[in-house]
Amino acid sequence: MSEEAKDTRRMVEAIEERDSVKFLKAADALHYADLAEIFEGLKDEEREFFADHIDKEKFADVITDLPDTLVEETMERLDAEEQREILDQVSDDDRVDILQDVSDDARERLLELVEPDDIEVTKSLLKYGEHTAGGRMTTHFGKIHAEMTIKEALRSLREDSDETESFSRVYVVDAKERLCGYVRFRDLAFNTWETKISAVQREVTRTVLASADQEEAAQMVSKYDLFVLPVVDEQNRILGIITHDDVVEILEEESTEDMEKMAGFSGEISEETYLNTPTMTHFKRRFPWLFGLAILAIASGIVMIKFEHVLESLFILSLFLPMVVAAGGNTGGQASTMVIRAMALGELDEGTLWRVAWKELRLGLMLGSLLGVGMAIITIFVVPMFYHDMPVEIGFTKFAIAVAISLAVQITSSTLVGSLLPIGARAAKIDPAVVAAPAITTIVDVSGMVIYFFVAKAILGL
Amino acid sequence: MSEEAKDTRRMVEAIEERDSVKFLKAADALHYADLAEIFEGLKDEEREFFADHIDKEKFADVITDLPDTLVEETMERLDAEEQREILDQVSDDDRVDILQDVSDDARERLLELVEPDDIEVTKSLLKYGEHTAGGRMTTHFGKIHAEMTIKEALRSLREDSDETESFSRVYVVDAKERLCGYVRFRDLAFNTWETKISAVQREVTRTVLASADQEEAAQMVSKYDLFVLPVVDEQNRILGIITHDDVVEILEEESTEDMEKMAGFSGEISEETYLNTPTMTHFKRRFPWLFGLAILAIASGIVMIKFEHVLESLFILSLFLPMVVAAGGNTGGQASTMVIRAMALGELDEGTLWRVAWKELRLGLMLGSLLGVGMAIITIFVVPMFYHDMPVEIGFTKFAIAVAISLAVQITSSTLVGSLLPIGARAAKIDPAVVAAPAITTIVDVSGMVIYFFVAKAILGL
Repeated sequence: MSEEAKDTRRMVEAIEERDSVKFLKAADALHYADLAEIFEGLKDEEREFFADHIDKEKFADVITDLPDTLVEETMERLDAEEQREILDQVSDDDRVDILQDVSDDARERLLELVEPDDIEVTKSLLKYGEHTAGGRMTTHFGKIHAEMTIKEALRSLREDSDETESFSRVYVVDAKERLCGYVRFRDLAFNTWETKISAVQREVTRTVLASADQEEAAQMVSKYDLFVLPVVDEQNRILGIITHDDVVEILEEESTEDMEKMAGFSGEISEETYLNTPTMTHFKRRFPWLFGLAILAIASGIVMIKFEHVLESLFILSLFLPMVVAAGGNTGGQASTMVIRAMALGELDEGTLWRVAWKELRLGLMLGSLLGVGMAIITIFVVPMFYHDMPVEIGFTKFAIAVAISLAVQITSSTLVGSLLPIGARAAKIDPAVVAAPAITTIVDVSGMVIYFFVAKAILGL
Repeated sequence: MSEEAKDTRRMVEAIEERDSVKFLKAADALHYADLAEIFEGLKDEEREFFADHIDKEKFADVITDLPDTLVEETMERLDAEEQREILDQVSDDDRVDILQDVSDDARERLLELVEPDDIEVTKSLLKYGEHTAGGRMTTHFGKIHAEMTIKEALRSLREDSDETESFSRVYVVDAKERLCGYVRFRDLAFNTWETKISAVQREVTRTVLASADQEEAAQMVSKYDLFVLPVVDEQNRILGIITHDDVVEILEEESTEDMEKMAGFSGEISEETYLNTPTMTHFKRRFPWLFGLAILAIASGIVMIKFEHVLESLFILSLFLPMVVAAGGNTGGQASTMVIRAMALGELDEGTLWRVAWKELRLGLMLGSLLGVGMAIITIFVVPMFYHDMPVEIGFTKFAIAVAISLAVQITSSTLVGSLLPIGARAAKIDPAVVAAPAITTIVDVSGMVIYFFVAKAILGL
């Protein structure tokens, strides 16, 4: 058993036994990320005990690591003095996160508790949306002026040292606070004290606007292997930095969001873990699409009823009906996943629509033809072994041709639909992931039935 | 148009016009990540021109950023002297990546070109698998000895300064090279030169074994918001570090892999962009599952044939048949996506199987009952408006009850299957994502048909 697992067990025991000495010892040994996980899994009275007994400095870190939906109720467990302490302890960006996670009323009340020193930066950060670069950035970074000497720069950095998350990049600004370069800490350490900053500074090649979407910032960091990405305003004044841990968080959030949308979930993703999310919340996020798709699926039923005479005149058609329908869903799902993922990684831009369509058209034809031929062979050689009622005027070969053609048409069209729908959605400013797999499957189910019955009718003369 | 887009266009023009002066100017303005993207999109003779004219130092960076599958052919465009230069230019971990991406023969040949200084570390890194912490780590990091003074430490770091990726964490080792702590660069800069390192060093709380899976390292960095994660051997000797950009890359790879597996792709993920991947490669990755699932779907067809008499005695059953089947696929897909994502984020461990099953059972019952009631209402109030052939001994109410019950059973069982199959797969050491959506959909398609016909037969007495 790992040290963490042991400490976690001790912690849970201490809470169950309401043993505050044991609790504090275990809390001391654990990282706040582990504590947040434990807290999330507790029952109500246990959370009360946890909040009452934990050291408030440590609790501040725990709160910043809690799922958004738990922040408000956790803050409410504390009295005003403790809330003030928490808001004072956390960094500016974490404070803003807390304020963004609570209701409007609570935000008003909590804002009154923010220290006068912090109120201005807090209010200015609150302006940015939670999912923008400005909403994600940290405002604690090393900043020096171009006209300083290294000695002056080091002194100024030393004063901010306690609050600064990272000095791996120290940003250089001009008299108007505009970003004009950066230095690495080692550039300061390995040069003489009299050197001017402007002599050692390096060029900043990439910045992101505070109003930009967080995904844009993450893609930039990922593509260009950036260490830190400076966030600027329209006048190129540096407001903050996006660091590696922000990017890791953004990427995990966006992937989870895409996967969930592709599987047909509605609403915002929950930051709570799967097991700690109430069953009712899971229910609410799954039901709407499930219901919508069920209604859509009735369309397939109507198609079946319309073609009743075809099916009844040659019931062996049923043998391949589910396959033709499912093959369209599967191939459409593959195509949409590929395209959606490529868009999420920033690969496909507006101009590539026709290249995607052309590629998927060829792919669909290849997949459909090969699968069609494979199934035709099975139809001719395997089906006659157990089915003996094939009318002579039709015969297995004609039947095989009908199956193969409908498979080829269904797969080709489904591949096209699966690849073009997400692109179309983006053009219409809808999140592409929303129209993915389940929606596409339902659409191509209907078309699969129509294609199959239509081809069978035409070729077999039913 | 952004500066990059302009430079990219200039670059592409230069290559088309075979204008080497314009080419070099554009290449100079672009980041290697952009150059790698451009190179990937070129035709064969254009790549030749690119490789011949680009500055070899820049080309070294471009090669490290190319998709794995392009590395060998690109290296082969160069003569031995140029290859030697490339291998000398790149960092140790990038050199190992290049060697891992080429065939065994090419590796033998290229290894002979590696400088004597680098050969030992290169060979020792080659031992680790590409997807382990050891295979990902960089060996360029700041390392100092505990008994040094700050002055000695700074001198020693300065000597390695050119080669070192990051000094944000400088690791402290003891006489036996075992990791015993770290210092931040600012701890060196803000203390007197005579201070012993052991007096300012901080404790390293988390390390990862070189043999550990890369995903474990990435999850650790993500959970604990680590800046840098030291990679150690069994004796706790530090071998390298995993940095933020490695983690970003790992997370993107793993998410893409999961999404693709969930949509039914086979084989390794391609690092080439969607559009640059040859159509044949796309085809090979999509066909196997498509074919396997098509064969499985015949099982649904067999069920339809077995229940021919039920369907023919009351053809209006067709109206809800596709819906019952599809609802199972959709709800099973939602459940499996939830569970697979939770596992990928490190949330669910071995002991939680029954908690997941219990949660999904309740969810399935809730979803199934509500959808069943909804569809029963539609059956009773809407269907009679256009369907007038319902036999009196059956009636719409009985029909509605049959639809509702089969929906509830199908959704409950599909939710359970969708959530438990990935967990079972992991227990059997199969990647959970592989059994996801398409496989589950096909399985619950069959069960949906059986449930629907069976319930209809029992309740309606067909």
